[in-house]
Parts: sequence; C-alpha cells; structure tokens
Amino acid sequence: MPPKAPKINADRLDSTLQTTCSTWGALSESTGMRRLALSNEDKLVRGWLVDECKAVGCKVKVDAMGNIFAIRPGTASDKKPIGMGSHLDTQPAGGRYDGILGVQSALEVLRTLDENNIQTHCPIALIDWTNEEGARFPGAMMCSGVWSTKSSAGLEACYEVVDVDGCNMRKALEDIGYLGDTACDYRENGLESYFELHIEQGPKLEAANKKIGVVTAVQGMKWFAVRVSGVEGHSGTTPMESRSDALVTAARLIMAISETANATSLGVATVGVIKNDTQSQATIPSGVEFIIDVRCSTDQMVDDLCAAIFKSFDGIIQAEKNNTSYRVVRTWGLPESVFHKDCIEAVRSAALNAVGISNIMEMKSGAGHDAAWTSKVVKSSMIFVPSKDGISHNPAEYTSPEDCALGAQILLDAVLRYDDGVKSGSIV
Amino acid sequence: MPPKAPKINADRLDSTLQTTCSTWGALSESTGMRRLALSNEDKLVRGWLVDECKAVGCKVKVDAMGNIFAIRPGTASDKKPIGMGSHLDTQPAGGRYDGILGVQSALEVLRTLDENNIQTHCPIALIDWTNEEGARFPGAMMCSGVWSTKSSAGLEACYEVVDVDGCNMRKALEDIGYLGDTACDYRENGLESYFELHIEQGPKLEAANKKIGVVTAVQGMKWFAVRVSGVEGHSGTTPMESRSDALVTAARLIMAISETANATSLGVATVGVIKNDTQSQATIPSGVEFIIDVRCSTDQMVDDLCAAIFKSFDGIIQAEKNNTSYRVVRTWGLPESVFHKDCIEAVRSAALNAVGISNIMEMKSGAGHDAAWTSKVVKSSMIFVPSKDGISHNPAEYTSPEDCALGAQILLDAVLRYDDGVKSGSIV
Repeated sequence: MPPKAPKINADRLDSTLQTTCSTWGALSESTGMRRLALSNEDKLVRGWLVDECKAVGCKVKVDAMGNIFAIRPGTASDKKPIGMGSHLDTQPAGGRYDGILGVQSALEVLRTLDENNIQTHCPIALIDWTNEEGARFPGAMMCSGVWSTKSSAGLEACYEVVDVDGCNMRKALEDIGYLGDTACDYRENGLESYFELHIEQGPKLEAANKKIGVVTAVQGMKWFAVRVSGVEGHSGTTPMESRSDALVTAARLIMAISETANATSLGVATVGVIKNDTQSQATIPSGVEFIIDVRCSTDQMVDDLCAAIFKSFDGIIQAEKNNTSYRVVRTWGLPESVFHKDCIEAVRSAALNAVGISNIMEMKSGAGHDAAWTSKVVKSSMIFVPSKDGISHNPAEYTSPEDCALGAQILLDAVLRYDDGVKSGSIV
Repeated sequence: MPPKAPKINADRLDSTLQTTCSTWGALSESTGMRRLALSNEDKLVRGWLVDECKAVGCKVKVDAMGNIFAIRPGTASDKKPIGMGSHLDTQPAGGRYDGILGVQSALEVLRTLDENNIQTHCPIALIDWTNEEGARFPGAMMCSGVWSTKSSAGLEACYEVVDVDGCNMRKALEDIGYLGDTACDYRENGLESYFELHIEQGPKLEAANKKIGVVTAVQGMKWFAVRVSGVEGHSGTTPMESRSDALVTAARLIMAISETANATSLGVATVGVIKNDTQSQATIPSGVEFIIDVRCSTDQMVDDLCAAIFKSFDGIIQAEKNNTSYRVVRTWGLPESVFHKDCIEAVRSAALNAVGISNIMEMKSGAGHDAAWTSKVVKSSMIFVPSKDGISHNPAEYTSPEDCALGAQILLDAVLRYDDGVKSGSIV
C-alpha cells in the first residue's frame, strides 16, 4: 500500500500560478500570457523556479537544450527520478494554464513532499521543457523531442533554428544563461517514468461533466503544406471562363478537407494557415498556400484520412477544368503515442480515490505534449483537467482553481503510488 | 473633311517609351516597372515630360492633385482643350504599357503636330493623371476622380490618404514639387473632350484577332469587404461537429461567388484578397476577411449579380449549421461609365480608316480608367490595343511596338477628326 498522500495546498498553488503569470509575461487587460521561449520573461520565471526548487531541497541540472531538471533525492541510490513536468513558455497570445499548470503543480508536489517530510524511494524530478509551444522557434515540443531522440543531429539542427528576428536557439540559450552542460539525452540524464498534468485544451471533459481525464495515448498527427497554382489576371477584364483562379480551387480543397473528415469519422482535419501570393483586390490569385493538420487516434487512421483527402483533391482538380494545379509537401508529423500501463494505472487509481469513477474519463489527447515524446523512451502518462469552453491558445483559456488543485493532488498521489510500486517490486 | 492626319513616328514612340521606362522605375531582370505615384522615379519622369512638352510649344499647368496639363494652343481663342492622356505611375510590379502608353502616345501626337506645323482649332492637351493605380496611396483613379467631382471635400480627403510609411498625399506632392496652383476641378480647368489610348489588359482583342478596340463604356464596379466570424479552437482537441470554422465557411462563400458569376453570366466576380486572423497551424480560424470585386456591363447587372451572390451566402450560412456568421461592408464603387457618341465616332472613323472594319471590335472596358471619371463631366472615349495573353499588372505585360504605334496613330486621327467637327460645327 502506498503512503496516504498528504493534501496539496490549493491556495498556494493558485496564488503561485497567478502571481508568477502576472509578474512574468502577462498581457495587459486580460489574463492572457505572452511568455515566449527563452525570452526575458522566460528567463525570469526560470530563475524564480530554480530558486524555489532549491528551497525545498532539490538539486538543479540544466541540459544542453535548456531543459531544467530539479531533483529531490529518494532513499534508493540506484534509481532514476520519477519525472513530473510540462513547460513554462506560452503562445504569443496564450493563457495561464497550458503547460504552466503542469510545472507549477509539480512544484506544489515538491513543496508538499518537503513540508510533510516524505521520503520517496525514487528521486522525484520537476522538469521544465524548453520551447514546447514552438511559437518563437518553430517546432513544437522541440526540446523534449531532442531529449527523447537517439541522434545528436537533432540537437545541432535545433540550435540553428531561428526566430523572426534571426536569433538562433543556441544564442538565445546562451543569452539567458540556460545553455546547460548536462546532456540532453534520455540515456545520460534519464527518468524512471514521467507524469504530466495538463489542461485538456478541448471540450470533452466539460461536455461530459467529468473532472479528470486519464490519458491513455496521444493522437497521431501529420501536417502538409499545399500549394495551388493558377494564373494571375485582371479581375475586370478576364472572363470567368478564361480564369485559372488559385483561390477558387483552394476554397474547394479546403471544403473537401472538412467534408472528408466529417464523412469518414476517422479524425480531425484543419486548415489554420492560408496565404495568397498576390493579395491585390483587382488581381485573380495565381498562387495560394495552406497548411493541413490531420490528427487521428492511430497512425493508420491518419494515413487513411490523408489518403481520402488527397483522393478528393484529385477528383476536384479533374472536375474543375480551370487549369489550376496543386502540390503537397509533408512538413511535420508525430506518430501516435501510447502511454504505459504502469503510469496509466497509477493515474487511474489516484483519480478513482480522489473523485470516484463517475467523474473520470479515459481519453486520448488531441494535442501534442512533451509526454508524447517522453513516452517513446520512458514509461509515461498524463492527467487532464477541464478547459472552460474547450478554449486554449487564447487569453480566455481558463481552468478553475479547484480543478487545478484536484489535478495537482492526483499528480502527487500518482507519483507516490508509482514510487510505492517500484519500491515493492510490483513495477519493474 | 478633316485634314489627312500625318503619320506618327513609330520608332520614336517605341524608343521614347522604352528608354524612359528603363531609366525611371525599371525592375531589374525583366521589363517590369515599379514607378509608384509621387516617388522619386515619378518625379524624374514628370520633369522629363514637362520639358518635352514645352519643347513642342506647350504651356504646362500643374493642378492641386499634381495632374499635369500640357496645352498646345489652337486657333480658336474661346475653346477648351481636347485632352489626351493617361498615367505614368505603375503597380509595384507592373509593366511598361498600362497608363504609360497613353501618355507617351499623347506626347508623340504633340510632336507629330509640331513637326508638321499643324494648327488645330481647339487647343490640344496632354494630361498625366496622378495616382491612377492607387498602389502607393489607396484609391484607384484618385486624381482624375477629384478633377471630375463637384465637391472640394474629395480633394481634402485625398490629401490625407497615407502610404505604408505614413506619408500623406499632400506631403508627397510637396516633396516632389507637384502641389500645383491650378484648381483640380473640371469647371475651372476644363476640357472640350478627352481621349485615352490604353492597353486592353484582357484577352478579348487577341483572342478575336482584332487590332483596335473602340471602347464604348466602362463596366460598373463594386467592391465589398466580407468578414466571416467563427470561434477559435485547438485543431487537435475540437471534434469536427463542435467546430465553428470561419475558413471553412469562407471557402464555401468564395466558391459560391465564382459559381454565381458563372451561372448568371451577368459579369465577373473575384476574390483577390483573403486574410485569416489567427494564421496558426494548430488553431481553427475564428475570423477570415476577404474582398469581393464585382464588375458588369451595367449598374443594374452589378446590383443583380451582387444580390444573387448575397442570396447564395444566406443559403450557405443557414445550411452550414456551424454557428459561423458573416457581415458585408461596401468599400468602393464606380458606376457604369457610358462614353460619348461624338468621341466614340471620332475613334471609330479613325480606326476604320486605319485598319478596316474586320480589325475593329466595339467593346466595354473591364478595368477602370481615368476616362471613366472624365466621362462623368466631359465627352470622353477610349482606344484599346491588344495585351499579349491578356496579362497586365505584371512584368510580363506586353504590347508590340506595331500595335502601340497603331494606337497612337488612331489617337492622333481621332483628335483631329473631333477638332474638325468642332470647327465645322458638326460637333456642338
């Protein structure tokens, strides 16, 4: 039996989260946040976090991608830490919960363990992953990705990624003092397991009136850049039948993406970015680019939905007869991530204990998270709490203090249950 | 009977047009042009033009919007000038013919009259209208519009229009020395009539293998800004059936615009500008704006086509059931312009004389021109010459030297025929 978990301090968690957000990266006139990765705001909140972790007995390591590992020792000298974490960076106009809740809750867990003098078997680590959002340096989940990947080429490539001002990642890490000397590699700086508390960023828990999501997997995802080519022409002098209008064709393709996702029920497909080369009121568009984001429960379903979408494209281009054409480039993908039964079970039992079966939903994550990467190399799982109206990546993002505290409590309990399993030998 | 028109000098016209384009505003590596209104390139070519006009006996007036009137005296002291002209400014990546051909041909007409010592009854004016393109200071045909409008409010409003660097029109006029002291008003600085030679900017003459377009009218035009509103959401976590995707709805509307124009055959409708508020790969678009350009032969047809388009919009929004909405703002319009029979007849008879009936097409202009504005207050018409592949507003814009020369010859002949009509009293 695990030790009965002490209660986390809900007020302290809320106060810490709100105060640090107000201090470092708050947008004016809302609870929105702009705390871009490796910005001055990120530097300041990192410095604060490191101090707080040291204050509760942690040793702090910073790795070569700026990931922070704050480790509270355990009694077993031969065990790697059980990790808890997420990210402190935000979208340019994001909220106070996406990522931030996971890190602040991990700190609340450390504080609770410390003030209750609880000795764990395994060390317990808080982790702040760098540049999860990919908002400043393109590439979401960048640094958990480097940590979880077997090649050093990934690290060097990420160092060269530049922001809109031309500053590369390595320089940005140096500038704020977070180009650490610990290897960014799960083999050299490893974990026993990894738990991540996160807001759902979707409407399912709220709609079902559930309190906790026991997350069993992360959807597979693929992104594609599509370019439609036509011929420029004067809007007043080119007859309708002579036009090769790239935007009209793009409009048909965008509709087909939505219709195909609806008709097949395989998953979701979204066009969130569209660019028109000419952007002149009196010019027939000659080139339009857009990006498709496809996500499904399994990689096979992703491939099936993509195939259905591109088949519909070919039919449209043939039927359209306006001499437009298109080409597709795959730009990014994250394979389906299946979480580990040991971690899922620790979260499920903690959630059952806290709120009972009627308040729990087993679910897959629609969004990518650092845990999707860690799950490739260490046992991992996630805990979801509800997002008001499903809104995220937006200043209106909101999760109640009660739900945040419940998530943190389950994070603590799950970590202790897992630790007890390792100690007792039931988890090997 | 009018005097037999002397031959214009085709080589001189071509050489002058090409040399001035190469010297003032040429894009590198193409015959493309970037000669924005009131830029330094525009200042230099204006200075050259003024000198050339003075060299053939013209008096030059500059009005309050920078329009240049270079006037060659006639024998009648009580007549206003017969105008010829167009504009020397271009799109940011335009060609050497749109507008420029009309001004350079007018200069060639003045030179031909001068070297042949022809005395006209009416004065003959070359006019360079300021900012026809509206590419630097938004508002196409801006300064012929001010000249043709009865209120001084238009002038003051145009002075306040700013370019992307925040420089306003009045300052730009002052900076290049073209804030003139002649009133920009057809009542104070009037014309007997106005002829404009222009490239077709469309494919019709070339497709029909015709040499000259006798232009009888300019299409009516209306522009509308449409804003579609939905709700932001995470692309991975928002189920298809819960989405309020503004871009999917916008795509349906854009398709409907094209389909409605095709189905009704009332005219042409184009979306040349589209903007997505969020532009994030993982965000369901919450706001999309686009601009519709509708052009038809008559104002009634414009209104009918607009009504059909907006009726289709309402049907789409009702059927879509995704809780998106739209609103429409009319942003600009130019009523149908019907040219004057006296001017049309002068052009037609000159064209018949030059190339015979089999090479002439009577047509309406799909593009707006300065002559559309002048026609509101003085007798006006236009001459079109073919555009290769119908291309315009593009470095690939091209009209052969032979076609340019033929246009200039017909311009000269039409002006002399009209002048003879005034002298003889057949035109009153």
